[in-house]
Amino acid sequence: MSDAEHPSKSASPIASAPVRRVRQGPVMPIGGAEEKSVDANDSILERFIELAGGKKSRITVIPTASEDPEEAGQRYVKVFGKHGLDNVEVLHLEQRPDANDQKSIEVIERATGIFITGGDQARLVSMLSGTRVMECIRERNAEGVIVAGTSAGASILAAHMLVGGTGIAGKSGDASARKAMVELVAGFGLLQDVIIDQHFSQRGRMGRLLTAFASNPGLIGIGLDEDTAVVVDRGGMLEVLGTGMVTIIDGRNSMSDYFERNPREVLSIVNSSLHVLGPSRKFNLDSRQPIPFETNA
Amino acid sequence: MSDAEHPSKSASPIASAPVRRVRQGPVMPIGGAEEKSVDANDSILERFIELAGGKKSRITVIPTASEDPEEAGQRYVKVFGKHGLDNVEVLHLEQRPDANDQKSIEVIERATGIFITGGDQARLVSMLSGTRVMECIRERNAEGVIVAGTSAGASILAAHMLVGGTGIAGKSGDASARKAMVELVAGFGLLQDVIIDQHFSQRGRMGRLLTAFASNPGLIGIGLDEDTAVVVDRGGMLEVLGTGMVTIIDGRNSMSDYFERNPREVLSIVNSSLHVLGPSRKFNLDSRQPIPFETNA
Repeated sequence: MSDAEHPSKSASPIASAPVRRVRQGPVMPIGGAEEKSVDANDSILERFIELAGGKKSRITVIPTASEDPEEAGQRYVKVFGKHGLDNVEVLHLEQRPDANDQKSIEVIERATGIFITGGDQARLVSMLSGTRVMECIRERNAEGVIVAGTSAGASILAAHMLVGGTGIAGKSGDASARKAMVELVAGFGLLQDVIIDQHFSQRGRMGRLLTAFASNPGLIGIGLDEDTAVVVDRGGMLEVLGTGMVTIIDGRNSMSDYFERNPREVLSIVNSSLHVLGPSRKFNLDSRQPIPFETNA
Repeated sequence: MSDAEHPSKSASPIASAPVRRVRQGPVMPIGGAEEKSVDANDSILERFIELAGGKKSRITVIPTASEDPEEAGQRYVKVFGKHGLDNVEVLHLEQRPDANDQKSIEVIERATGIFITGGDQARLVSMLSGTRVMECIRERNAEGVIVAGTSAGASILAAHMLVGGTGIAGKSGDASARKAMVELVAGFGLLQDVIIDQHFSQRGRMGRLLTAFASNPGLIGIGLDEDTAVVVDRGGMLEVLGTGMVTIIDGRNSMSDYFERNPREVLSIVNSSLHVLGPSRKFNLDSRQPIPFETNA
């Protein structure tokens, strides 16, 4: 916050020179089903509130992914209220043009923290992609405002987002990586070179993530379990929050048979690097290296 | 079969010299829920029958893991009957001493293929581990007889077997790798340095497999999806069968915080190698390398 609001504070010829990386605030994708009670340990929401400015933060909730946005919005107003926040607004969008409306922009502009709820990723894309609201979210994040999303709201934070692939017609429970099982669509782009999947272990989504991965081996796949999140700072450092584990797959050195397979055939992807991280572990997304464990951690 | 029954056929000074690796037949762990119909494509059971000697094979079914061994045994007699086999016997064991009985041994000795059904791994261990039946299965496999197992029957084929870990008390759906979540017990040992888990993607068992793995980084973890199997020949070459994918995790270069964590805490395991293989792909368990894809496969 303070960094974003007082850029002159640390101004120097070097600091004010143009840099490639856009200054940006923290990004926090959450794997869904995050613990909402006030007295929870390792609370993801408490960390979100802290990064949004604590008790004085102004939160904007975006419930657009939900089938019942009204209900979802009010649920999070209550949740944040119990955490002591009384300045929580819900962005109401009934149709896509509303996301270009000045009133909607103002709701985003007031926020010191933005929270995107879960639901249907396709609804999020169709309502928000390419709108002024999306641009405003990017700008606010570039200025230092934290943007968090849970479940579908987590996936849309990255540059690329998975759609589909939660089962093959006629074969329920199929969890293999199959060609053309998923589509990649553009997300908000707050995290580059990353694909995020959520409810990861709970819904057996390794196959789905690998499918996207096979045709995009330069990306990093991040699988978030429920009640588990990562917060990525503007240096590209990822930290695990919550109570579960985060699965990180780096495919830079991998090989797949993607181009030889036909649609729906099972893919093979070998020589990926796999990192599974528990709470408070860190991973550098730029260097693609886990931060070494301390021996007396 | 012919190799095992006619060792003199290819006898030569070199072939008859003592070798470190015990001569052994194929081992086929199956991830559960294998397709049983006769006209299925990529049928795992057809491959089992072929390796057992085709239509003339004599199959022994071991239904000990099942809650209702009588029913499970008869089910597979019917299944194999539909595949044209009329020489299928079921090993009946009511209590552990039966597994030391000469009659039980004879049922194993007659077999040209041994098939272990699914159910409860703990029941398999308590009824069979250290018995003459187990020794006889090892001997027959060493002589060239194929041994297959599905679900719990797959896990027991390896030297080490996971028990427990399908959920933490009070937290259903938890799928993280947690210390002391699983126990390792000794399996039949037909595959060395390997842990096999089954129903792998369908039940989100990556965490469970990694838990065992964190404290045993020298092992290879093999996760078998449903209707998916591997057959391992005596040269240590693994081939994927069926319709799903096989997940192979090699932890030789991995690091974990196993020794720093307390029981039930989430583990971190970084720098594992991950290989996901579709049908007909091969992997060399000795060199721990996937067989390169052919460009015109």
